[in-house]
Amino acid sequence: MASASALAIPAKAWSRQSPRPAVDGARLRNRLERLSTHGRPPGGTFASGVSRVAYSVADLTARAFIIDEIKSADIVPRIDAAGNIFARYGGQPNQPAILFGSHIDSVPNGGNFDGNLGFFAALEVIQAVQAAKLQTRHPLEMVLWAHEESTAFGIGTAASRIVAGDLQAGDMDRTWNGMRRADAIRRIAGSPDQIETAVRGKGAWHSYVELHIEQGGTLDQARIPIGIVEGIVGIHRYDVVIEGFANHAGTTPMGERQDALVAASQLTLAVREIAARRQGRQVGTVGRIAVEPNSPNVIPGRVTLSVEFRDLSDQVLRELGDAVTARGAAIAQDTGTTITFALASTNLGAPASSGVQDAIATAASALSLQTRRLPSGAGHDAQQIARLCPMGMIFVPSVGGISHSPKELTTWDDCTRGANVLLGAVLALDARDSV
Amino acid sequence: MASASALAIPAKAWSRQSPRPAVDGARLRNRLERLSTHGRPPGGTFASGVSRVAYSVADLTARAFIIDEIKSADIVPRIDAAGNIFARYGGQPNQPAILFGSHIDSVPNGGNFDGNLGFFAALEVIQAVQAAKLQTRHPLEMVLWAHEESTAFGIGTAASRIVAGDLQAGDMDRTWNGMRRADAIRRIAGSPDQIETAVRGKGAWHSYVELHIEQGGTLDQARIPIGIVEGIVGIHRYDVVIEGFANHAGTTPMGERQDALVAASQLTLAVREIAARRQGRQVGTVGRIAVEPNSPNVIPGRVTLSVEFRDLSDQVLRELGDAVTARGAAIAQDTGTTITFALASTNLGAPASSGVQDAIATAASALSLQTRRLPSGAGHDAQQIARLCPMGMIFVPSVGGISHSPKELTTWDDCTRGANVLLGAVLALDARDSV
Repeated sequence: MASASALAIPAKAWSRQSPRPAVDGARLRNRLERLSTHGRPPGGTFASGVSRVAYSVADLTARAFIIDEIKSADIVPRIDAAGNIFARYGGQPNQPAILFGSHIDSVPNGGNFDGNLGFFAALEVIQAVQAAKLQTRHPLEMVLWAHEESTAFGIGTAASRIVAGDLQAGDMDRTWNGMRRADAIRRIAGSPDQIETAVRGKGAWHSYVELHIEQGGTLDQARIPIGIVEGIVGIHRYDVVIEGFANHAGTTPMGERQDALVAASQLTLAVREIAARRQGRQVGTVGRIAVEPNSPNVIPGRVTLSVEFRDLSDQVLRELGDAVTARGAAIAQDTGTTITFALASTNLGAPASSGVQDAIATAASALSLQTRRLPSGAGHDAQQIARLCPMGMIFVPSVGGISHSPKELTTWDDCTRGANVLLGAVLALDARDSV
Repeated sequence: MASASALAIPAKAWSRQSPRPAVDGARLRNRLERLSTHGRPPGGTFASGVSRVAYSVADLTARAFIIDEIKSADIVPRIDAAGNIFARYGGQPNQPAILFGSHIDSVPNGGNFDGNLGFFAALEVIQAVQAAKLQTRHPLEMVLWAHEESTAFGIGTAASRIVAGDLQAGDMDRTWNGMRRADAIRRIAGSPDQIETAVRGKGAWHSYVELHIEQGGTLDQARIPIGIVEGIVGIHRYDVVIEGFANHAGTTPMGERQDALVAASQLTLAVREIAARRQGRQVGTVGRIAVEPNSPNVIPGRVTLSVEFRDLSDQVLRELGDAVTARGAAIAQDTGTTITFALASTNLGAPASSGVQDAIATAASALSLQTRRLPSGAGHDAQQIARLCPMGMIFVPSVGGISHSPKELTTWDDCTRGANVLLGAVLALDARDSV
């Protein structure tokens, strides 16, 4: 019997095969188009986007469609206790599997590429390996993460978090939209009563790769087809309360005002300046604001707003937070208001494994595709799975940088390119004992 | 028979009388305290403020109390078609009346002095004249304006506007809070079917004087007990729409954003700067703002906000509007947004008559009270009645400049001083054939 190593097909050999193994771009497109009908607005088209929030009826019918598609590839779908769908193909039984996949739930009025592309590309990888009759050393395992967008049940409830071990007493009792989380998971054929069986340990997989749309405009603007993700940024989010004094807008002279909205405006511009002035790709945003009493003829007395910073480096995030807090103190002094900052949530960043990044680079290079390394400003399931095994992500261009919108668009050619790079990366990873 | 002139009691004569005619400060306080129970929060005290929105149950019971108090002074209340309550005392039948009064409706969670003081001071004037057995040339007419605050039925619906002739087809069909305006007026014993009988012509009165709390901090800070209003400021209000582009707060680099809230912040600070930088007492306020989608992790795509300027001069108001519109164009350019300004409403200012100002100054001087001339930044019924006859207003200090709040406060001594100045001013006006 040949050794395990001898059976493996190294990436170089793969990329030199003729015809080279490749995904079926037409099938990929066809599946994405068929998936888009689950949650499409009434009377809409593919361009109308999709509302397929996790656990909704659209999500249930889409999952049924997906299970049929997996079965059509002669592999067996398995649903874990959290509702995630896994399916394996090939490999040696004593080897850890290489995992790849994404999600198909959407935000309300979302697009047809976020998650969807990465999931069907994973199925294409297995079908391309089958078609080329390749035998891999490591089992190839595809995954549909049951719930990624934070629309359902809010931030911190993604199904991949459970797999990574984020499970606390009471989690299943959380309610959203009149639905208990346990019931939601039961709805998608999960087993909330055995939810702990969904948790996987460190080393559960050989590695994890996820193809996803960039959701930003970097690749599109630079006309580069493949992004190699360096890591997923951490997020520090502050809840800010500004207390001024509500008073009559007609009778209070300019010099005697304690206008909370003037302070909030100064702070909003400070957040922008603090994020923009230093080298690097950190971002800072004031996205939510509420004013009291919010009447044209009353000086705003109270403002609450959110400040969010994102960066790969936790140190940078702390420095940005310190800078805005210091600026807040000066603004409070200047405007006669009080400004309090509460660190509402911190989301640890996750660096991508250099080994997985290399495998992606190797695959893109074999296909003569230009690449750029970049951080992911958005959160992804990969961020959770990074706790269990080496992780990497492939980005493809989002036209105009638009996402979470019906206008979200990645060209079919870019979809196919991305799926082929995923295929090549998986095969390149298969050649390595460890990443 | 003595001539009309000979019967008049000139201010000088009045101020030299011994004892000098004066209001009853204790009775004034007692009435304000009793009025405050109509609309007081459950379990509250006088310091808890009042919610007595026009046409509410609290307003109805307060009006019944007021009618009783008017009758207790042996004068006859008359309710016009708009629900305003008038009552006359003395004077010669061929002479136009001197009108004085205010309102008792409040904003939700308002205070116990705004309007209330001016109304009960008017009743005190008549009772002081009765007590001193003075005979005036002109009939003295007190008025309760039925509805002054714009809470009920919105801006432009004050009952004094009807008297001044602001009456258009469909006005009575307006609805607010599930109530037709006609039904609201019927509720307070008005006659919406004969509403046009409430309209009065130019010259309907000899003059109009209103005592009111300042609602700003000028008098309180300067420790001056009496303000002589130079006029009521005009208001130009703009509805501003800022269109940016909503995008992912994590994936969109700082340099590629079209952040509508950043533009709104720049505009808010520009409004403040434009109003503050020039000489004068003009004010500028951004009091209302709405952001879409208003989520911490999405760059704001659309902001609507209000810009309001107030000044005595229409010319100054136009210049302020021009300045902020020009600045808006520059901000739009700078932030990659579009900013549109719509002049949503203009409220013409009303200068106070110099004759009425002089009468107030004469009365204050006779009482050795220091005065300051100042504009009224807030709107008042006097603004409407200025269209019919010479108008003036007396201000008394608002502690801390606070109004439209349970914290609204004018000391009882200042209330009494203000009422005595109203009395003196009415008698000084009575000495003049024309103002």
